Amino acid sequence: MADGYTELEKAVVVLVENFYKYVSKHSLVKNKISKGSFRKMLQKELNHMLTDTGNRKAADKLIQSLDANHDGRISFDEYWTLIGGITGPIAGLIRQQDRQSLIRQQDQQNSS
Amino acid sequence: MADGYTELEKAVVVLVENFYKYVSKHSLVKNKISKGSFRKMLQKELNHMLTDTGNRKAADKLIQSLDANHDGRISFDEYWTLIGGITGPIAGLIRQQDRQSLIRQQDQQNSS
Repeated sequence: MADGYTELEKAVVVLVENFYKYVSKHSLVKNKISKGSFRKMLQKELNHMLTDTGNRKAADKLIQSLDANHDGRISFDEYWTLIGGITGPIAGLIRQQDRQSLIRQQDQQNSS
Repeated sequence: MADGYTELEKAVVVLVENFYKYVSKHSLVKNKISKGSFRKMLQKELNHMLTDTGNRKAADKLIQSLDANHDGRISFDEYWTLIGGITGPIAGLIRQQDRQSLIRQQDQQNSS
């Protein structure tokens, strides 16, 4: 991706790259993630966020309810919807924690 | 947000923060973005991505078709869906550009 990209664009690229990192290597199911791999991905890549918020059960429920076309594989659109479904209910909380963390960092900088 | 967050978690935080950056200051429409602000946001924050892919018309169509509850404001869930709707069709392209850019960077490092 070209230089000069905005922070938001870089964040979108991270989400895209992360999807392809977990995509099935199986040639028959191109550009989809298996449910098992998706669960592994959540554990590895969204671990702190899910632990901090006690949101893990909700995530499990979401995975079960998703997979709109019932092929047992998760497409990019489903992947995006799923992460949004996990993030949406805790967006306010994420923002709050982020602000508190910023304040702590500033306090540390001021006191050092 | 605590230290030690994964790259994916940091990317999610960027998307959350960006939403609140454009949220209406109007006390009557808490935690929503007006359609006008959303369009401004796209121009400012996703500008390169939309220009590179010629995806701008698709984005305009999406904004018009979204706003599921027709209140003229975009909630976090709608915001997430919209960015996913812009990203989904170009995810493969984003990945391709990203790889080409990586290869270019490696070539530059090797030749310097």
